This record gives sequence, structure tokens and C-alpha cells, in this order.
Amino acid sequence: MGVVALAGGVGAAKFLRGLVRIIPPQNLLIVGNVGDDVELYGLHISPDLDIIMYTLAGIVDEEKGWGVAGDTFHCLEMLGRLGFETWFNLGDRDLAIHIIRTKMLREGYTLSQATAQLCKMLGVKAKLMPMSDDKVRTKVQAGELLLDFQEYFVKRGTMDTVTDVIFEGAKKAKPAPGIIEAINMAERIIICPSNPLLSIAPILSISAIRKALEASMAPIIGISPIVGGKALKGPADRVMASMGYEASAYGVAKFYGKLLKHLIIDEVDIAHKKRIENLGIKVTVTNTLMKNVEDAIRLAKILMEAE
Amino acid sequence: MGVVALAGGVGAAKFLRGLVRIIPPQNLLIVGNVGDDVELYGLHISPDLDIIMYTLAGIVDEEKGWGVAGDTFHCLEMLGRLGFETWFNLGDRDLAIHIIRTKMLREGYTLSQATAQLCKMLGVKAKLMPMSDDKVRTKVQAGELLLDFQEYFVKRGTMDTVTDVIFEGAKKAKPAPGIIEAINMAERIIICPSNPLLSIAPILSISAIRKALEASMAPIIGISPIVGGKALKGPADRVMASMGYEASAYGVAKFYGKLLKHLIIDEVDIAHKKRIENLGIKVTVTNTLMKNVEDAIRLAKILMEAE
Repeated sequence: MGVVALAGGVGAAKFLRGLVRIIPPQNLLIVGNVGDDVELYGLHISPDLDIIMYTLAGIVDEEKGWGVAGDTFHCLEMLGRLGFETWFNLGDRDLAIHIIRTKMLREGYTLSQATAQLCKMLGVKAKLMPMSDDKVRTKVQAGELLLDFQEYFVKRGTMDTVTDVIFEGAKKAKPAPGIIEAINMAERIIICPSNPLLSIAPILSISAIRKALEASMAPIIGISPIVGGKALKGPADRVMASMGYEASAYGVAKFYGKLLKHLIIDEVDIAHKKRIENLGIKVTVTNTLMKNVEDAIRLAKILMEAE
Repeated sequence: MGVVALAGGVGAAKFLRGLVRIIPPQNLLIVGNVGDDVELYGLHISPDLDIIMYTLAGIVDEEKGWGVAGDTFHCLEMLGRLGFETWFNLGDRDLAIHIIRTKMLREGYTLSQATAQLCKMLGVKAKLMPMSDDKVRTKVQAGELLLDFQEYFVKRGTMDTVTDVIFEGAKKAKPAPGIIEAINMAERIIICPSNPLLSIAPILSISAIRKALEASMAPIIGISPIVGGKALKGPADRVMASMGYEASAYGVAKFYGKLLKHLIIDEVDIAHKKRIENLGIKVTVTNTLMKNVEDAIRLAKILMEAE
């Protein structure tokens, strides 16, 4: 069929809202990272899936990149009043999704079934799937500390130096149904501009997915989330550096290695072009900043033409 | 110990906020109606317990008598957008309670344990207990229609003529732990000004509770929720009439019958005094309207002096 995209959160969502405007969204399977999932107050929260759903549904808070536009935080405020920790930002409108997802999971739906239902309810036409219906949890090692992903990311504001990343449950986890088939039949596979070590690596930690990607005849094309040595959002640059990778487009290429056929890098990183090509990876240099949907469309077009 | 109060929702809560100001709240056990409980969106909602908790915690929406003051309804709005029915008014702050209650129940807490925890979190010092930890559900028969309580009460706005009331599960239900002991040791038992047939009857449908009340040596003192033939709030007058009771203070006395030692009725109902006394029930006539906490305190004092 069509296109498979491996996606993290905000960066991926910004790109995907361009992509769904230039290809029929039903031809797109987005494989989302659920290593960041967390259970809070008994509710199952899938932050990366939500960001993508909200963005593609056109209801995302554009400024923050996550959450529902114009949302309030009154329930969270009350939870605080009841004595609970409230470091995870759960908006009132946002909560509706978590409540319904949790209800469906309790009723026996798999996470991929629940996600499909939520997408339908929100009018998202692209197919969005968690990488796995099994529980995989990203844990961050920061020296002596072993942190849950959201503890590292939200509660402690990425202040810790990441020395290792662990994907708990990955060994036993199977890909969500249909992912392998979609990879096998894909014309094109995209690695969205997401944190390689924290957002894409959890997807690749499912060995059947990695193997299918390695065996795929389709070109695997990435977009560097690092521009001018800095992550556009989040801690990708720092995490790459502390994990022994160069915090650059080159470092991204190096991390994906043979998996990647082609990497889209920003104009400011033109100096890395040759170095990346020397790894056997094709390079397209363009303006990769996405300030609006037009930028995303332009970038998606370049990506769909890359070979 | 002290005082046991059988309570429905708004009317009971208004009275109880006076009572807890004239007796040590820890000497009071409120036995709450949970026949109205409902599961919505996978959340366990106990409307009557919530009204009492919010009122005693001082956070109730005074105008409506239920819900949290100043609450918003953004989560509900989003649930509607997702395609769910939204006839039950769930505020955003209100939701925090339902989310935590549901979490506790899923973790194995009983409803009485969860209620105790929530009361503690909200700073409610009186002891509030559901009539039972077992599932009892009030169903309303309206001609051919058999309605769930909230369907009758909220969704259809009490527009149906009630021909029967059924307490599903009552036969097998046991009183929540401690209720019987508290009744046995009570100095005084109060039947709050709640709907006799829809709010107090579910409590009395637990046979061990009814028997303990019948056997109790403590005076059982009620306050008529019907004033001048009209319910102060809700459909009590219409339900009494359609169920074959006079919609009056006398009808209330008749319904409780021998259970009642003393009934507080409003001044406008003075004509019923003699008729009620003829049932063997003492009567105190006073202004029973509670416009503010001072009114509730005054009424509570009268009730605590009644014999």
C-alpha cells in the first residue's frame, strides 16, 4: 500500500499534518511510540499518540504542541487539592480522551483498537497505531537514578543527564497487528523528526519491527530533528551527547546507520552532508523548520520525492 | 455513640451542614443512598454521597445544590464531541472525585473505604458511608418503561409518572460495615428531608438496616421534605402521589409509619399535625425552610431536642 511513518510526539505531528495533505491519509500508517505511556490516577495516557491525534484532528494547542487548544486544568487543580501530585499536565478536554481510552482498555480493547476508535471519533483519517499492544515502558538511567520516562521528561523537566535508556518489556512485546504487513508492503518508510534515542528507539526496540525495516525494499527516509546542533524541541541534543552520539544531523545519521537510505537535513547543517554520505546515506539539504502547515507540506513533498 | 442520619442528596446535605455545626461531626454517621449510583464513561459516580461531601467540605455549588462551586464542563463538552451522550452533568473539578473513586474501587477498596478516603481528602470530618458496599440500583417503573434512576432523574428530567420503584440487588446487599453497630448504639436517628420513596427507601431496602432501625431504642426523628404539598426540590410530591401516598407531610409520616417517633413539619402544614399524631407520631411544627446555614443550624437544634 502506501507509507509507513515512525513517529514520536510534537516534531512528528508537525510533519505529519503536512504529509496527510499531500497523500491520501488512508494510505498512511503512523507507528506511534508508546514507551512514554503512563498510568496516572488510574487513567491510561498515551502522550505521543494523543499529540498526533490532536494535531491531525486540528485541535492541538499549536503553541505548546501538545494538549487541546484552549483547554483548562480544573480537574487537575482539584486532584491537587485532594493531595495528589499534579506534575503531568492533564487538560480537562484532554481528559475525555484518557477516560474513554481507559474505559475501552478495561472492556478488553487492545491499545491499537482503542486508538483506532479514538481516531475515528476525532475524525483522524490516517491510520495511527501504537508500536505494540503489549506494555513497553521507556526508562531513563541518569547515573544512579532509574526514572520512568514521564518522571524524567515532565516531572524533572529533563534536567538529568541520561546515561542509558531502557525499554522495559520490549523483548516480549509483539508489534501491533498489521504493522509488519504494512512495512512489508510499504512503498516508502519515514522516520519523523523525533528524538532518535527516546522516541524512535522504543519503536525499534520491538525486534520484529526492526527486522522488518531492515528487510524492507522500500526506501527509509529520515528527517533530522537536530538542526545546527540543537534539538528543535526537547532534550534530543543533550541525550545524544550524553549517550555518546554527536549532537548533530551527522549523529542522527550515525544512530540510524544502515537502516536509513536517505536523510533530510537542514541548510544550516550543509557541512555534515559529505560526512553523512560517507556513511552510505543519501542526503537532501533544505529548510526543515516547520512554522506552519505550509512548511510541513513543503517538507513532506521533498520527502515523498527523495529516493 | 452519637447520631445516625439517613440521607439522600440536596435536602439532606442542606440539613447536615447545620447539624455538623451543633454536634461534634465525628459523632455523626451519615448513611448515604447509593441506589442512584451510576457508571458513566467507566467512572463510578455516587451522586448523593458527592452532594453531601461537597456540601460538608464547603465547596458545593450553593445555587444548584450539587456539583463543585464555579465548576466548568469542558471534559463533558469533549465527550460530547467524541460522540458520547452528555446528559449527566459532570463538572471538571467534580470529575477528580469520580476518577479517584474509580481508581480506588479498581484497586480493591470497598465503596465505604473509598468514601472515607475521599472525605478525608476533602476535610469532611463527619463519617459518611454508603448504605452498602454491594451494588444496589434504584430502578423506576413508569408504566411500561423501566428506567435506571439517573435516566429517570436527569436524562428524562423526572417527566415520567412513577408507578413503582425497584431496588435491584437490595435483597442480597449487606449494610456497609459499622452501620448496624452505629444504629444499635445511636442516641438519636435522623431521617433527613429527602425523597422518602426515591432516596430513603433504597436505604431501608437493605433489610438488616430496616430491622436495626425497627429494633432501635433511640428516637427516630424525621423532617418532612414536603412543605405545603410540594417537594422543596425534585419530584417527591409527584412520586408520592403516583405511588398512592398523599403528597403532604402526612403522606411522609404515613410512609415511614411506625419507624418514626417524631416528625418535624413546616408551619404551613400545621393542619396535618393532628392527623400525624393520630398515627402515633409526635410532631414539631416549625419553619423548615433552609435558605442558609443559620436556618439549618436552627432546624438541627430543634431536631436534636425533639424526643
